[in-house]
Amino acid sequence: MSIRLSQRMESAKSSVIREFLKISQQPGIISFAGGLPAPELFPVEEYREAANIVLEKSGRNALQYDTTEGFLTLREIIVKERMKSVGVNTTVDNIAITNGSQQGIDFSGRVFIDKDDVIICENPTYVGAINAFKAYMPRFVQVPMDNDGMIMEELENAIKNNPKAKFIYTIPDFHNPTGITLSLERRKRMVEISEQYDIPIIEDNPYIELRYEDEKIPAIKSFDTNGMVVYLGSFSKIFAPGIRIGWVCASEELLSKYVTVKQGADLQPSTITQRELAKFMEMYSLDKHIKKLISVYAKRKDLMIEMMDKEFPKSIEFTRPKGGFFAWITMPDGIDAMKLCMKALEEKVAFVPGASFFIEKGFDNYFRMNYSSMTEEKIIEGVIRLGKVLKSAM
Amino acid sequence: MSIRLSQRMESAKSSVIREFLKISQQPGIISFAGGLPAPELFPVEEYREAANIVLEKSGRNALQYDTTEGFLTLREIIVKERMKSVGVNTTVDNIAITNGSQQGIDFSGRVFIDKDDVIICENPTYVGAINAFKAYMPRFVQVPMDNDGMIMEELENAIKNNPKAKFIYTIPDFHNPTGITLSLERRKRMVEISEQYDIPIIEDNPYIELRYEDEKIPAIKSFDTNGMVVYLGSFSKIFAPGIRIGWVCASEELLSKYVTVKQGADLQPSTITQRELAKFMEMYSLDKHIKKLISVYAKRKDLMIEMMDKEFPKSIEFTRPKGGFFAWITMPDGIDAMKLCMKALEEKVAFVPGASFFIEKGFDNYFRMNYSSMTEEKIIEGVIRLGKVLKSAM
Repeated sequence: MSIRLSQRMESAKSSVIREFLKISQQPGIISFAGGLPAPELFPVEEYREAANIVLEKSGRNALQYDTTEGFLTLREIIVKERMKSVGVNTTVDNIAITNGSQQGIDFSGRVFIDKDDVIICENPTYVGAINAFKAYMPRFVQVPMDNDGMIMEELENAIKNNPKAKFIYTIPDFHNPTGITLSLERRKRMVEISEQYDIPIIEDNPYIELRYEDEKIPAIKSFDTNGMVVYLGSFSKIFAPGIRIGWVCASEELLSKYVTVKQGADLQPSTITQRELAKFMEMYSLDKHIKKLISVYAKRKDLMIEMMDKEFPKSIEFTRPKGGFFAWITMPDGIDAMKLCMKALEEKVAFVPGASFFIEKGFDNYFRMNYSSMTEEKIIEGVIRLGKVLKSAM
Repeated sequence: MSIRLSQRMESAKSSVIREFLKISQQPGIISFAGGLPAPELFPVEEYREAANIVLEKSGRNALQYDTTEGFLTLREIIVKERMKSVGVNTTVDNIAITNGSQQGIDFSGRVFIDKDDVIICENPTYVGAINAFKAYMPRFVQVPMDNDGMIMEELENAIKNNPKAKFIYTIPDFHNPTGITLSLERRKRMVEISEQYDIPIIEDNPYIELRYEDEKIPAIKSFDTNGMVVYLGSFSKIFAPGIRIGWVCASEELLSKYVTVKQGADLQPSTITQRELAKFMEMYSLDKHIKKLISVYAKRKDLMIEMMDKEFPKSIEFTRPKGGFFAWITMPDGIDAMKLCMKALEEKVAFVPGASFFIEKGFDNYFRMNYSSMTEEKIIEGVIRLGKVLKSAM
């Protein structure tokens, strides 16, 4: 093609995960590769009821243009229910609706990043965030994690080395891909660091309400008294992703920037799905629905971990998530997860190789396992298949 | 705020039109300011029926994640019906779904523009495109128009002066804000110029099917044999904007770039509204619905033009659109549409001052009038009110 594209398109690649997902959806393959919520748990009938009422009572409004910020009733419910549930007291003036939290990630790039700016994130981090931010051509500085999440001393070092860093991007709860949760102490410390160095935090938290063990830890945003934290929420995991509804919670000043960006990007969120979701939440308790999700996902997670304990070689380590969708597997150095994945596919089982969650090369011995969308039979059979592949690779 | 934003946010402003829309929605004001389709024409009951079937028959799929490109059935219908209707023979591999055509505009910026690149567009042009492209910090070169649209000699001059221009952005049919349509000859010539200078065309064409007079002119894309034209389509005006569904039609090679961008930006279009719209179009004829829209809008347009002929001072000129939503009013030099707008608001009538459709300053004597969402009584009363304001300003 002789047409000249933008520089950013040179590094823009289709997500490896999405490509794997296509392969892994072939019949007969047991796939731990995706990150899908369980469709059998979607409240389809209740949503249909809500949709009917919306179209009957206010169909014309539901099909018309609406404000860029989003539907007021939906934003009110988010304030009263979802933000409260994660420990954040806020107002509708701090909430704007996005197309899933992915759009909140993209907009964070647009609001903050100039070419070659440094942004800080966990090592590894969500591949969809890497792809979104790359459009703005930053330099990524990835901070090591341990079992309590991003290590604060390492974060502070990273900031000292990059005092003009634009933001800290973090997935504090049941982190994608590792399943790790940032400790309470570190959340407080991260806010202190953010204030001290004037570097805002982008808190991407789609899994926080899906906790299967121990007490909830409040969102980082709950410790924010100076408007330093931008919280990205999502209904994709606690309700359903097909409606594409997430939100941004930020100081009014920062939120106005996100709203301006939304105007240029796609004018406004879908009027109709916003109204339908709001109606659903007026008619039914989403809290109750989340409890149901937790009871099912917790069992699947426990079963997968139990099976991996039993079937994986002892030299393989993995995280033991207390919520969310993913566990993270560490193989001995020298074993290449990408090659292993090809072998696994031959045995009709799939996972996501970990390399794409890192910016630097050389992290080839990791992979990610999802358990949310699998029946218990498939979890058992899939881990047995994978155990065999792993044993023969050792 | 001591938080450092990206450079692009310095010039990012909330759209003047959206701000005016808020004011003009106050009770008692007759507003020609917006660009809303008539809500009383939305096929609400039919859509509710389609939505019910989708949720009953395939609710779980409708609420789940789906492909980035969009729902296959919807893309097939777009190929067979909408693209065919504008004279374009294409395939599903050339179609990807976006959140309205606004997202296609934004993605065009992302795919093509590096900072300080030149892009070429009409003078004036759609303010939402200006805002979207500004996020990528190009230099705008605006090409003059006459009653047959962008002037091709001027376009060629602009390209000779800017041979590295990234694209030509054009709204060929019932242009926003002027209502002008690019002639058949110029469409062919634009494609020739595009090929000769290797500069692609972004054809933004949300109004093409809403023609009230004369024969249809095929889309610019219909003359494209070398993949130089990216066509942006939308269901917002021919169906309803609240579902946020538009599409991109481009060569497979270029389309793959848009799909990659979509992945990073928000993963995918809404699964549920895509399926509902597709079901609606399987059950009902959208062509028939468009005919109904045309019969209503044509009357409103005729009435507004007739009233302006009668009520506006003779020194005021305006376009006589043959379709779409807008007419464009030219006042004598020295009359400031922004000041006039304030006076008009006092008289409870609103329009959009034209300055925001231009990049350069000094175009203060223009304004835009919309007729699509007004009853005939309001059109009559509104133009009478506005005529008085104009006469007292002359």
